[in-house]
Amino acid sequence: MKKYIVTIAREHGSGGRIIGKKLAEELGIAFYDRELITLTAKQTGLSEAFINDIEDQKPSSLLYSLYMGTYIPNVYDEAYVAQANLIRSLADKESCVIVGRCADYILREYDNCFHFFIHAPIQERAKRITEEYGEQVKDPAAAVKKWDKKRSSYYNFVTQSQWGRAQNYNLTIDSSIGLDQTTALIKDYLKHSGVLD
Amino acid sequence: MKKYIVTIAREHGSGGRIIGKKLAEELGIAFYDRELITLTAKQTGLSEAFINDIEDQKPSSLLYSLYMGTYIPNVYDEAYVAQANLIRSLADKESCVIVGRCADYILREYDNCFHFFIHAPIQERAKRITEEYGEQVKDPAAAVKKWDKKRSSYYNFVTQSQWGRAQNYNLTIDSSIGLDQTTALIKDYLKHSGVLD
Repeated sequence: MKKYIVTIAREHGSGGRIIGKKLAEELGIAFYDRELITLTAKQTGLSEAFINDIEDQKPSSLLYSLYMGTYIPNVYDEAYVAQANLIRSLADKESCVIVGRCADYILREYDNCFHFFIHAPIQERAKRITEEYGEQVKDPAAAVKKWDKKRSSYYNFVTQSQWGRAQNYNLTIDSSIGLDQTTALIKDYLKHSGVLD
Repeated sequence: MKKYIVTIAREHGSGGRIIGKKLAEELGIAFYDRELITLTAKQTGLSEAFINDIEDQKPSSLLYSLYMGTYIPNVYDEAYVAQANLIRSLADKESCVIVGRCADYILREYDNCFHFFIHAPIQERAKRITEEYGEQVKDPAAAVKKWDKKRSSYYNFVTQSQWGRAQNYNLTIDSSIGLDQTTALIKDYLKHSGVLD
């Protein structure tokens, strides 16, 4: 079977990471989420905590300053570039599922690469982060909104597009039909597109 | 089987109307697209051409002026309200597929109502409007962009949300996997959500 890549972007609490992991297991292909952080940390010599936090930071206006010839790399840009290169090298190597990290944008020119966005109503996400993820926060709904804000700011800045805009993805799914059902639907999509039998 | 409603919003040239019609046929339920225009025209006494064009016009700031108690109905508002009431009465009556006309927003509080958004890359849409829809335009890519602009302005104004924002829909699909495949995927969704066997 030809190599194929699945990227999954997700609202916090939508179950996107769980869906990605389950999908990779069922398809028998590699899964990259936290692993990206560990690998990028190893490559750059930066700490995992620092790499983990780059999604919360806007890189400096990297593209603009590259264009203007005035680029002076800073440590956030360096971490972003290292991570983007890592994502490309993984996608070159093998079929895999990659969660988050603007992978849909980084791999936008890749063949046989399919992009999914998982979302869910706020009440459901607030419930999941406390009951399933075990997050201890005072106001769960406010916490997921804060995460959305961070992820969208980072994505919008890096890609100059909009996080959660339907046109950026092959399929976007409201996971409130259930995480197993959402996983099955992604497989249905891959079947209809001829990637899976 | 319990009554269920499917709404389909679509980018011009994405094949959304064809998909909706095919879906309704395969499910054996009613299909409303142009029919909404004919029915609204009959109810209001306005011409079909006028009703057809309301999506190109922003209704006056209806909600705001209702709130302020300063509402003086104009003919666009009247047509919008008549059409919204018609959509609700159809959804009350029977299972159906409704294309366009902000039906997802109008029926947002309805049970067993599922919202889909169909999009496709611009080159594909430009090709479809000339080769399949037979539209004669100088610059097909510019023409579909102009339609997108009209539909999104109308939707964004009426709903105070964003047309094509993943979170407004149960599922958004890039129809470049094929119109039959996209139709099948919508049916897959309805199966996973327990609406269809």
